[in-house]
Amino acid sequence: MTIPATPATPSAVIDRVGLVLDTFDETGRLTLAQIVRRTGLPRSSAHRILERLVELRWLRREGREYALGLRLMELGSLAVHQDGLCAAARPHLHELHRVTGLVVHLAVLDGTDVVYLDKLGGRLDSAVPTRVGGRRPAPHAALGKALLAYAGAQGAEFERIRETGVAYERGQAVPGLGCIAVPVGPVGSAPAAVSVCGPLQHMPFDHRLSGRVRMAATATWRGYDRQRFAAASRRPRLHSA
Amino acid sequence: MTIPATPATPSAVIDRVGLVLDTFDETGRLTLAQIVRRTGLPRSSAHRILERLVELRWLRREGREYALGLRLMELGSLAVHQDGLCAAARPHLHELHRVTGLVVHLAVLDGTDVVYLDKLGGRLDSAVPTRVGGRRPAPHAALGKALLAYAGAQGAEFERIRETGVAYERGQAVPGLGCIAVPVGPVGSAPAAVSVCGPLQHMPFDHRLSGRVRMAATATWRGYDRQRFAAASRRPRLHSA
Repeated sequence: MTIPATPATPSAVIDRVGLVLDTFDETGRLTLAQIVRRTGLPRSSAHRILERLVELRWLRREGREYALGLRLMELGSLAVHQDGLCAAARPHLHELHRVTGLVVHLAVLDGTDVVYLDKLGGRLDSAVPTRVGGRRPAPHAALGKALLAYAGAQGAEFERIRETGVAYERGQAVPGLGCIAVPVGPVGSAPAAVSVCGPLQHMPFDHRLSGRVRMAATATWRGYDRQRFAAASRRPRLHSA
Repeated sequence: MTIPATPATPSAVIDRVGLVLDTFDETGRLTLAQIVRRTGLPRSSAHRILERLVELRWLRREGREYALGLRLMELGSLAVHQDGLCAAARPHLHELHRVTGLVVHLAVLDGTDVVYLDKLGGRLDSAVPTRVGGRRPAPHAALGKALLAYAGAQGAEFERIRETGVAYERGQAVPGLGCIAVPVGPVGSAPAAVSVCGPLQHMPFDHRLSGRVRMAATATWRGYDRQRFAAASRRPRLHSA
């Protein structure tokens, strides 16, 4: 692939910035040479972009290496905290964590992955290998199976999840870990799901525990719906904004 | 200010993207018209940038409004998790949280602000109004005072912090909240600080508690230093990367 030294359009520049930041998905620290190799960008162009991103603090430079910077931490944190779903879910996630002592997640579907928007870990935090902003193939997580089912996925397991409203994981995705997930919202339009996870020996797969997860999901949906309704009724009807 | 419709250089495009994302610092959802008003960018240029950022999932669009998107959540989370300091600190922050039950922070200085890199809240989480990626003027936080002192700030309070290695807050910044902070690293080159915070009535301002914070800071510094040393000795000496 040949990439011109000077991109023709603003979109092309934005794509290059995206390409540069994508190289940090796997590795925390990269030299200019490594970034040039991974992106295929001309060295001078990559260098110019990197230096500008350092000035904006999207990246930081340590010696000859670059790493993701403070401004991205801030924007990422803002993205989570400004999200209406996260805001609606937070008190119910806290309550679910408090009463169960298990690791609690809120996640959304992004293509065929689940992305974690919130995690309350407590003492089990490090036992469950997830993090806010992290992703995982949807079929490998109870949360993902719940969301795929509510998005209309075909198959016996998805059918059962749609009927019961609950998805389970019993050590298939991560050995020794169990998970119970419930979608937030109705079949066909659930924007997120809530789960509890923990070591299998601490996970009673009973109605009481799944009932608690369901309560958190229902309360989150109610709060989110109310909030959206309020926002819609505040919004001007005509194109006056 | 007049901004040309088509920016001349990649740097100018990157600056415009930065400008657009900055508008979300205060508000979670903005229309095109609001973004045009706040950035001063030409409408067509702002629209082109916004649409591209939506395609890259840095932003998402809901109806006529834009909000920060999933990709920024991911990058922000990666920035935190790839940070060597955060990684070195995490086990010691968990231990400090476990033995004290208080809210534990790791923060760095950015200009005259502190930026929080990690927070372990537990049951007191919502009692302490901070978040990962959030910032606060350094003089308004024990963490900030600790970092300013170790960066060489002048004045009796900073002098005392340099002597004792500990900074206190007793409800001045947030009424009813106390904080004890200790820098990570020596005077003149402390990259971060650790703190415990909680309601004043739960905060014994004694040697035992400050000793615990000091232990976490010392252990973090030792781990971080060892990690940097290992990275430096892995790195090739010549310009071969």
